[in-house]
Amino acid sequence: MLNAIGAAARKASYRLSIATSQEKNDALNLIARELTDPRRMEEILAANSADIAAGREAGLSPSLLDRLLLTPDRIREIADAAAFLTGLADPVGRIDSGWTAAQGIAIEKRRVPLGVIAMIYEARPNVTVDAAALCLKSGNAVILRGGKEAIRSNIALANAMRAALANSALPVDSIQLIEDTSRETSTALMRLNRYVDVLIPRGGGGLIRAVVENATVPVIETGVGNCHIYAEKTADPEMAVRITVNAKCSRPSVCNAAETLLVDREIAPTLLPAIAAGLWEKNVILHGCPETVQILGDRVIPATEEDYRKEYLGYEMAVRVVSGIEEAIDHIRSYSSGHSEAILTRDLAAAEQFTASIDSAAVYVNASTRFTDGGQFGFGAEIGISTQKLHARGPLGLPELTSVKYVIRGNGQIR
Amino acid sequence: MLNAIGAAARKASYRLSIATSQEKNDALNLIARELTDPRRMEEILAANSADIAAGREAGLSPSLLDRLLLTPDRIREIADAAAFLTGLADPVGRIDSGWTAAQGIAIEKRRVPLGVIAMIYEARPNVTVDAAALCLKSGNAVILRGGKEAIRSNIALANAMRAALANSALPVDSIQLIEDTSRETSTALMRLNRYVDVLIPRGGGGLIRAVVENATVPVIETGVGNCHIYAEKTADPEMAVRITVNAKCSRPSVCNAAETLLVDREIAPTLLPAIAAGLWEKNVILHGCPETVQILGDRVIPATEEDYRKEYLGYEMAVRVVSGIEEAIDHIRSYSSGHSEAILTRDLAAAEQFTASIDSAAVYVNASTRFTDGGQFGFGAEIGISTQKLHARGPLGLPELTSVKYVIRGNGQIR
Repeated sequence: MLNAIGAAARKASYRLSIATSQEKNDALNLIARELTDPRRMEEILAANSADIAAGREAGLSPSLLDRLLLTPDRIREIADAAAFLTGLADPVGRIDSGWTAAQGIAIEKRRVPLGVIAMIYEARPNVTVDAAALCLKSGNAVILRGGKEAIRSNIALANAMRAALANSALPVDSIQLIEDTSRETSTALMRLNRYVDVLIPRGGGGLIRAVVENATVPVIETGVGNCHIYAEKTADPEMAVRITVNAKCSRPSVCNAAETLLVDREIAPTLLPAIAAGLWEKNVILHGCPETVQILGDRVIPATEEDYRKEYLGYEMAVRVVSGIEEAIDHIRSYSSGHSEAILTRDLAAAEQFTASIDSAAVYVNASTRFTDGGQFGFGAEIGISTQKLHARGPLGLPELTSVKYVIRGNGQIR
Repeated sequence: MLNAIGAAARKASYRLSIATSQEKNDALNLIARELTDPRRMEEILAANSADIAAGREAGLSPSLLDRLLLTPDRIREIADAAAFLTGLADPVGRIDSGWTAAQGIAIEKRRVPLGVIAMIYEARPNVTVDAAALCLKSGNAVILRGGKEAIRSNIALANAMRAALANSALPVDSIQLIEDTSRETSTALMRLNRYVDVLIPRGGGGLIRAVVENATVPVIETGVGNCHIYAEKTADPEMAVRITVNAKCSRPSVCNAAETLLVDREIAPTLLPAIAAGLWEKNVILHGCPETVQILGDRVIPATEEDYRKEYLGYEMAVRVVSGIEEAIDHIRSYSSGHSEAILTRDLAAAEQFTASIDSAAVYVNASTRFTDGGQFGFGAEIGISTQKLHARGPLGLPELTSVKYVIRGNGQIR
């Protein structure tokens, strides 16, 4: 079954690779229109209701149920996001560079689609359309494998998109959804080297680890964020409170939320109480090193080694007092997942040392880690945030969903 | 043992990531000087003699023994290649792009080293120095794991490089060689995710497959080349003979050599005998489709399905008559390894269709596939040729050994 899906995706990718921007934009508009067609919307909402009912029965948490829920407004937003891509520049066909080499051959480095992208993701059904639309716009065929909690919604959404493609110039199999949500099929997809060019998992640490462990196809790791805020000794105290509270609390469930605060010993006695007051106001539970406990008192839970490694994704934060920038850098090198880290400082040398020494996708000076996001960066859209160093790092926009090929023209040259 | 090597490489990578171009160039010059120091050279030659003796005993083929052999001249060439890198531009620190995003945060996309690169490679000891020098110049720590046939030579070469580093500003552990050549250690290296950022295997299909199957670290696949020459019906006959003979025979053992010739039916009766004469002059064995056998006679061995898939890496070639460009494209899509393919044509539309439809690292019009090479492309050096679409494709020069990070400066922005 998977082989047939793979072969169909590969075949669709040939047509997609030479599709014009106009053809791709037309298809995206058709998809947006189909998703918001009243009869289609009814179908999607009915499927989603069944998922929600099953989720309630299975005891999903209210926050998970909310992520799973589709409403007419949410479907319209999803459709709008797909249509929005028509306004973004098409990365395919761009000539990154070109030159004539010694023997007179003309070399052109041309941007091309990756080919077939597989996406394995968790409960949110909007990812089904977001990912498919981004892959389509960048000329890639996509094989979607969503979570079982959203399977009925995902099938309805995929059917809508495929119906739209049937009226477009592009192959219906440009977008395929795997309806079998078993772990075996997921693992088989990770090993479908013959047909899959790149696998992008999107979900929690468990999913990412399973992919890294099992995949034989090339992978772009995304989204695990153990992000740090380091308040250097010259940090502006008011800014330190504001940024730390924002980085932790503005949306704790996402990967660019801060999980650990490091504070310079010199300013800890005055700064920590101010930051803690701000965090406690939002009911953040603090896990502190012994010095933090000493300064802030018993409301702080003593931090374990595990706390520094943890992505809380909630109203919890680890706090550690450090002797200075060297210790802060060492701590981040040991515990960070390489997503986003920020230094708060008024000292130029400290800012330079931090940005040069910290090897994460995004390194901030005096700004919240919450900005690591394709939208905030101005990319228009993103399919995830890469925390690996191969291929692309940070928010993955349309250009990151392409590869290159060299096209070389000669007039009979031999070597 | 491997964990200690990994940790040391990681530590060295921190220093290397902030090394100046001057420091890296000084170290490369020290390495070149050390390799050609008379006493050191004697040590290397003695170690190589022992490898050669063991290789003879183990029954290595003359061509393998030649690849293994070091001479004073060859060592000087290896040293020169390392020193040559000092003249190439340092890719680290380059700002690929920069802009100010909506909230007034200044974003800079800065090129940084990959970090720790692991190389697994086969018999040629020159790779030990080539790879180490390229990694050093691009600011990466390297863990080398060469083949057992060259282990004594590799140890001597690595010792020389490390002795040179001891006199440089850079850490000795910037370059490490794994002396244990067991398969278990190799597999463990492929799974050393904690310390290895990227693994680059360099060798035959068996090695590449083992890496793809076993690695959990990100991999850049290299060097398997089932390259095609397609003589379209308007091809210049003289050029077709010249390019085919060159692509097959100028160096048959390398990955950019052509392995299959496709000829348009319309010109096959006249062109095939001319090309075959050129190939037979070099004693190339031809494996042909039934039409090829019909045209060229019994000297052609009937081709099997397997022949079209094979990387002969020697004086053998598969030949197939095709009905036209569509069938040629279909054949290449089915059998190519995505390395290099060439069309020989005088027809503009055919050239455009071929370059647009063939999805390989290098697609040629009227030139030999043998040009797919970092040196020929003008990159100055290469560490291999990528046949995957993630990260980099085609010859891997210094820029391909780097990643990026986003450095973002604000003045207190929150989201």
